[in-house]
Amino acid sequence: MTRSDVTLDVTRGQRIGLGEAVLSDSKTVEQLVTVLRQADEAGLTMLFTRLRPEQFSALPAPWRQRLQYEEDSRTAFFGDPPPPERPAEIAVVTAGTSDSRIAREALRTLAFYGHAALEVHDVGVAGLWRLQRRLADIEAHRVVIAVAGMDGALPTVLAGLVPGLVIAVPADTGYGIAQRGVTALHSLLASCAPGLVVVNIGNGYGAACAALRVLSYDRPSAS
Amino acid sequence: MTRSDVTLDVTRGQRIGLGEAVLSDSKTVEQLVTVLRQADEAGLTMLFTRLRPEQFSALPAPWRQRLQYEEDSRTAFFGDPPPPERPAEIAVVTAGTSDSRIAREALRTLAFYGHAALEVHDVGVAGLWRLQRRLADIEAHRVVIAVAGMDGALPTVLAGLVPGLVIAVPADTGYGIAQRGVTALHSLLASCAPGLVVVNIGNGYGAACAALRVLSYDRPSAS
Amino acid sequence: MTRSDVTLDVTRGQRIGLGEAVLSDSKTVEQLVTVLRQADEAGLTMLFTRLRPEQFSALPAPWRQRLQYEEDSRTAFFGDPPPPERPAEIAVVTAGTSDSRIAREALRTLAFYGHAALEVHDVGVAGLWRLQRRLADIEAHRVVIAVAGMDGALPTVLAGLVPGLVIAVPADTGYGIAQRGVTALHSLLASCAPGLVVVNIGNGYGAACAALRVLSYDRPSAS
Amino acid sequence: MTRSDVTLDVTRGQRIGLGEAVLSDSKTVEQLVTVLRQADEAGLTMLFTRLRPEQFSALPAPWRQRLQYEEDSRTAFFGDPPPPERPAEIAVVTAGTSDSRIAREALRTLAFYGHAALEVHDVGVAGLWRLQRRLADIEAHRVVIAVAGMDGALPTVLAGLVPGLVIAVPADTGYGIAQRGVTALHSLLASCAPGLVVVNIGNGYGAACAALRVLSYDRPSAS
Amino acid sequence: MTRSDVTLDVTRGQRIGLGEAVLSDSKTVEQLVTVLRQADEAGLTMLFTRLRPEQFSALPAPWRQRLQYEEDSRTAFFGDPPPPERPAEIAVVTAGTSDSRIAREALRTLAFYGHAALEVHDVGVAGLWRLQRRLADIEAHRVVIAVAGMDGALPTVLAGLVPGLVIAVPADTGYGIAQRGVTALHSLLASCAPGLVVVNIGNGYGAACAALRVLSYDRPSAS
Amino acid sequence: MTRSDVTLDVTRGQRIGLGEAVLSDSKTVEQLVTVLRQADEAGLTMLFTRLRPEQFSALPAPWRQRLQYEEDSRTAFFGDPPPPERPAEIAVVTAGTSDSRIAREALRTLAFYGHAALEVHDVGVAGLWRLQRRLADIEAHRVVIAVAGMDGALPTVLAGLVPGLVIAVPADTGYGIAQRGVTALHSLLASCAPGLVVVNIGNGYGAACAALRVLSYDRPSAS
Amino acid sequence: MTRSDVTLDVTRGQRIGLGEAVLSDSKTVEQLVTVLRQADEAGLTMLFTRLRPEQFSALPAPWRQRLQYEEDSRTAFFGDPPPPERPAEIAVVTAGTSDSRIAREALRTLAFYGHAALEVHDVGVAGLWRLQRRLADIEAHRVVIAVAGMDGALPTVLAGLVPGLVIAVPADTGYGIAQRGVTALHSLLASCAPGLVVVNIGNGYGAACAALRVLSYDRPSAS
Amino acid sequence: MTRSDVTLDVTRGQRIGLGEAVLSDSKTVEQLVTVLRQADEAGLTMLFTRLRPEQFSALPAPWRQRLQYEEDSRTAFFGDPPPPERPAEIAVVTAGTSDSRIAREALRTLAFYGHAALEVHDVGVAGLWRLQRRLADIEAHRVVIAVAGMDGALPTVLAGLVPGLVIAVPADTGYGIAQRGVTALHSLLASCAPGLVVVNIGNGYGAACAALRVLSYDRPSAS
Repeated sequence: MTRSDVTLDVTRGQRIGLGEAVLSDSKTVEQLVTVLRQADEAGLTMLFTRLRPEQFSALPAPWRQRLQYEEDSRTAFFGDPPPPERPAEIAVVTAGTSDSRIAREALRTLAFYGHAALEVHDVGVAGLWRLQRRLADIEAHRVVIAVAGMDGALPTVLAGLVPGLVIAVPADTGYGIAQRGVTALHSLLASCAPGLVVVNIGNGYGAACAALRVLSYDRPSAS
Repeated sequence: MTRSDVTLDVTRGQRIGLGEAVLSDSKTVEQLVTVLRQADEAGLTMLFTRLRPEQFSALPAPWRQRLQYEEDSRTAFFGDPPPPERPAEIAVVTAGTSDSRIAREALRTLAFYGHAALEVHDVGVAGLWRLQRRLADIEAHRVVIAVAGMDGALPTVLAGLVPGLVIAVPADTGYGIAQRGVTALHSLLASCAPGLVVVNIGNGYGAACAALRVLSYDRPSAS
Repeated sequence: MTRSDVTLDVTRGQRIGLGEAVLSDSKTVEQLVTVLRQADEAGLTMLFTRLRPEQFSALPAPWRQRLQYEEDSRTAFFGDPPPPERPAEIAVVTAGTSDSRIAREALRTLAFYGHAALEVHDVGVAGLWRLQRRLADIEAHRVVIAVAGMDGALPTVLAGLVPGLVIAVPADTGYGIAQRGVTALHSLLASCAPGLVVVNIGNGYGAACAALRVLSYDRPSAS
Repeated sequence: MTRSDVTLDVTRGQRIGLGEAVLSDSKTVEQLVTVLRQADEAGLTMLFTRLRPEQFSALPAPWRQRLQYEEDSRTAFFGDPPPPERPAEIAVVTAGTSDSRIAREALRTLAFYGHAALEVHDVGVAGLWRLQRRLADIEAHRVVIAVAGMDGALPTVLAGLVPGLVIAVPADTGYGIAQRGVTALHSLLASCAPGLVVVNIGNGYGAACAALRVLSYDRPSAS
Repeated sequence: MTRSDVTLDVTRGQRIGLGEAVLSDSKTVEQLVTVLRQADEAGLTMLFTRLRPEQFSALPAPWRQRLQYEEDSRTAFFGDPPPPERPAEIAVVTAGTSDSRIAREALRTLAFYGHAALEVHDVGVAGLWRLQRRLADIEAHRVVIAVAGMDGALPTVLAGLVPGLVIAVPADTGYGIAQRGVTALHSLLASCAPGLVVVNIGNGYGAACAALRVLSYDRPSAS
Repeated sequence: MTRSDVTLDVTRGQRIGLGEAVLSDSKTVEQLVTVLRQADEAGLTMLFTRLRPEQFSALPAPWRQRLQYEEDSRTAFFGDPPPPERPAEIAVVTAGTSDSRIAREALRTLAFYGHAALEVHDVGVAGLWRLQRRLADIEAHRVVIAVAGMDGALPTVLAGLVPGLVIAVPADTGYGIAQRGVTALHSLLASCAPGLVVVNIGNGYGAACAALRVLSYDRPSAS
Repeated sequence: MTRSDVTLDVTRGQRIGLGEAVLSDSKTVEQLVTVLRQADEAGLTMLFTRLRPEQFSALPAPWRQRLQYEEDSRTAFFGDPPPPERPAEIAVVTAGTSDSRIAREALRTLAFYGHAALEVHDVGVAGLWRLQRRLADIEAHRVVIAVAGMDGALPTVLAGLVPGLVIAVPADTGYGIAQRGVTALHSLLASCAPGLVVVNIGNGYGAACAALRVLSYDRPSAS
Repeated sequence: MTRSDVTLDVTRGQRIGLGEAVLSDSKTVEQLVTVLRQADEAGLTMLFTRLRPEQFSALPAPWRQRLQYEEDSRTAFFGDPPPPERPAEIAVVTAGTSDSRIAREALRTLAFYGHAALEVHDVGVAGLWRLQRRLADIEAHRVVIAVAGMDGALPTVLAGLVPGLVIAVPADTGYGIAQRGVTALHSLLASCAPGLVVVNIGNGYGAACAALRVLSYDRPSAS
């Protein structure tokens, strides 16, 4: 396949404040290299998501060495992110330990754009005291990204307790009728808590982007 | 249609401690009368569920007058229930006001078998303090029937807080992806709380029967 | 049914900045009156959503007269909202004329909390020029609520063009495999645009609440 | 990933009489070790479910040797369970031989809490005599856990024959439209037998926990 | 709409031994009359299924009077059926009283082709003794049509007990996750009983046609 | 609601050769009138689809009288269509009589753009001779629109027999697992015939538009 | 796991004329050996279905050597089947070459019970002449088993052409919305052909059993 | 398995202008060889789709060497295609780089029949300028094949901009609720753009065949 099957959205950063990210897992190594080369030529930094370890390993060494890869989150940075701004305005909360890989994708996306975040893990509603103990910390943040699988109940409970924007990320944890996250997704959308918003199953990247839209919005001057 | 399309399960009470109940809404008036006549001949009391007001009104007066009908729950008693045993061993809890008609079906079923129950209404997880205020009352009961629609989060939270058996009844409240209760049902089945059990959407009758199995079990002597 | 099946979440406003709203369509008139009476006693204003005209008409006159009802959006205000703040920081955009009743629910919720909004209607992607003509207006707003049924493509296109937070509301417009909004909902969740967030089908109220969380967040001082 | 993504629910046992169990299969080895270390430090025993053989093998030897692992059920005990109480008050019944691995998860959970159980296997309704031959044994137990895949008919038949609480566990046996247990699950929820309760597909652990709630309930004295 | 939108399959009876039947409920009165006129001209008898009472009433009197209509089954005969052959080789069995209207459609279809049938009603598996009492009668028939809604368990149990062909007809009885018969349908297809065959939800007509194919097959002589 | 919720796509005709059509059934009378007024002011003709008789009747007389309404197809013309071109290059084929109202929507759309069509009705595959008798007629047309519900088999058979483009329109005829056309839709998409294309359930309008794109394409000269 | 998790239905053959068959793929080798030993002790022959090659290979040699295994159909015979009766009364027809492994399961089941069958392969409806060329052969058989994936159209066309009982077996051939056979299954159930009966996806065994019920029925003498 | 399970549709090319293609991935090597041998004997060229690399490698060398295999598209040609006609009348457009393997299947099918095509890649709607830059090129083509996964929005936008026939191919790109292409498929069918037609998920072959039906139609002279 030739280079022509990649067309980078080089002006996305100017338009919306977020550059294009590369959803990697269904791309061939050749396609990933083409992306890297085009980004390099255009002088763009680039975030790669869902980059499987075997894809990363298969990249030619010169390109691979220019990527900062984290296996847990399956993300890579091409180009250096800015140092994290503090204090954190975003909290990332998980219902269970198994959800932390999705939280990592959100955290890495935030880091790529220079944002720190509070992490609060494994505070699912089956043991409410865990959440309550951390509540004051969480509610001091303008945006809360809440990751939950199975029944998806944590973000609903959170959205009833904190005033900031709660962005729910359904996780594919659980089995049987958890349906790889579909049950959590639907439950979150049907939530009885007002103003809870939802992204796709496992979409830590998208939740982080939404948080960035909230925090980084700068009214266009001359659009 | 002739009488022959009804075959009452006259020995059910002896077998399992619960007599046959009549799921009424897809039966014709003729079929309902046949059921009543057979029950009367067999000397059985009988519980009718999902008996629509227009069905009740269409019954011949002599039969209608022998029924104790409650429109909210769409239940009717044929024959007098025993007086309620006290103190209550069952709590019936609802997440929202709209769920109370399903709770009523459970309460009426319990009443038909002579059981009282604690009622706690409208304590959904979007405002947790409502549940926490009533928690000590609830946990003093051996069985908790918890009715919730939309996200179905309440029974999960409850089952993390109380030691008794929690029986979740998904409700068809909500709209859109709440899917007439399917989302709540699936969420409840995927619950992260240990030992939560679930019945069909809107099945207050079934939840009550399960509670009765727990409370009334008497090891068969000579089966 | 007695008053006890309503438990208002009277402290919600203090906790999260948004008071309880009443999802009305599956409530009985008696339940609605109980809610009104409790709100009145507690000195709360109250927003009613999905209040059907026949429900509104069936309310006792003294209560009905204290409600400001709008039939298009099926919303009612109990108590006077504050005057709208200007300039608007929120834009409400619809893909088609049939989506405007959902947009109205969002607009009324915003109005209940004293927020104005820009309205842009019927700019679906089958005729892109309509959207492009209004783009500069839209992107000057911090939050964009975008309502779309059928294929749900508009919010995706918008989120690729504007930097603010785009909250997508799937609509139940369309027929056949549009599945009363489920197809639009799933399409929006699978969007290729970064940071698009989604609420339940037809949930204009929820989208407005999310916008209010963004705009009104005030870090708790002593939580 | 650091230790901070695990927060054990250390007070669950006190609250509800059942300690936290660890759903293992989507956890990394590092996370499992963190759980073990926290449990060890807190002096807790711990049940691991869905622990795959390769996960067990990958644990560091010192931890692995302190686990009592059973491959059939994919469960492990950390800490010694109490000796089983007798006589058994719980029966575990399977419809087919393929369902026995799910039954094992229930039996191991019961054993972890010191409960014996009667086992009755492969008595599905396609050959009713098998069930009828064992019926007297089964009905002498207060709680019956019934595992069935494919059509899920066995628990319904059982619940029409025995007076105790019947907890149905749908199994993912079967193929095609059996849909990995979803058909059995839905069929069980739609059961015509009164008071049948249901847990998630393959959730032998949950069924056992529900049984334990029934048998071990002890009214809180000072909650 | 003109006559040209009807093309009767006038040779179906010769080909397969079963004439065309008219699925009526989505046809206009004009279309029904066109069908009747064409059948009359071709000298064909004709079976109408799912003919709603209001459709029947709306037919012009001359046509209406030539139909033998039965409201329970929503069937009509155009032309006289042959007298029923005896003894019956087909049994029609229902799980519940609510299923009898579907059984009627099967019985009427059999009658239209001159076949008698044994009727056994309301023998669902929640009370097995009802079925067992009638088993000897049922198994003396070559084909058994078994109608069941909710969990759809009866035909499975039957197919494990009788040697003839068992044709399962799922019924739309039940509520919630019974999903208007889809759960029963899927459960029947996933049945553990060997050789159970299934038709569409509520398709008593189709079950009867299958039975007629079994009983009436006559090897074509010169095809 | 004010006029501002309608934005006609006035340049659609120039862009793609097909003007905007108005999907009417979820619009209010006020919205329909706004559309008419804007079209009138812009000098556009306009096609209305899914215009229910009660909507048509509720239109103010001056507007209603300027519409050519056909109840069978629920379509209306605003403005006069050109006279039909002959000979027809499109055939419209239905599997059953009940499908003809969808065929009518296609035929009316073609007529609105000045195209005649061959009609062949009720030639479903249960009686193949009906189709074979008309095959030579059908295959003389460049585009075949084939409407089928239930199993959706007709368009597949047709696409194996004729060389032109076959556009399948699934119909919502049938019951039970026909799922209001979803089964036919999915079956058509999974067709074993090469090059069969599909539109939404009941979308006769869309099928006609696709046919018009094939027949009317005129390479843009200066785009 | 001990021997006790197998309970052979040793009287099935006497009851219904078909012995128990062993659905093998989710059974352990130990369970398969237990089944073989019990069958051997009871003097039963036994049919194994869905026996994967790796399962067969893992059986202890003494048992393996007593099985007649066919890899294509994943079936094994324990004990010798009777010689095939002739002439064949059953035809097995496939729509595509990929469906032949399912047809093989049916053919092997028939062979196990001593029945021959006519095989007609790859005669799907995209090229109707293939079916028509073999039609006279097929219709000379009392029962037709028709296997089809993708759109599932072949059995419908067949059932409109032949008078015998047509048993449709949906196949999991196809991709995308073919949904591993679910689309074919639903299409077959919604068929417009009268009296078509259906079994589970890929259930060649079940189709053969149904055919055997038709052919082998022998009215019980003393039941 | 013997040769008899393959029946080539040798007259398909004469009937509809498109020869049979072989959907390879569920066929055995033996079946593929049988197809090749029959094609060779009949003097037919043949297109193979979904031929996995391991299937291709497993073919006997004499046959393998006569195939022109392309791994990206998993297609093979048996026999030489005609040289491509120019100028191209078809454009193939993809929304993302990951969709190009599906586009390749379409392009190879076109090439097999001697048609060139314009390729435009990675112009999804999240960055509209990419599409707009290529619009004039695209609209100069009579047929546009548009491949899109995730939300499936690109073909809708295209169909609102170009006058030719737009054939949408949903892709299985994306994750979670993208549901392996089902969401894109349903979104495309519910499209608000007039005359968009759709094929199965990933069916580049089918889209190409539809395009060929449009371009190559030649009215049968003597059918």
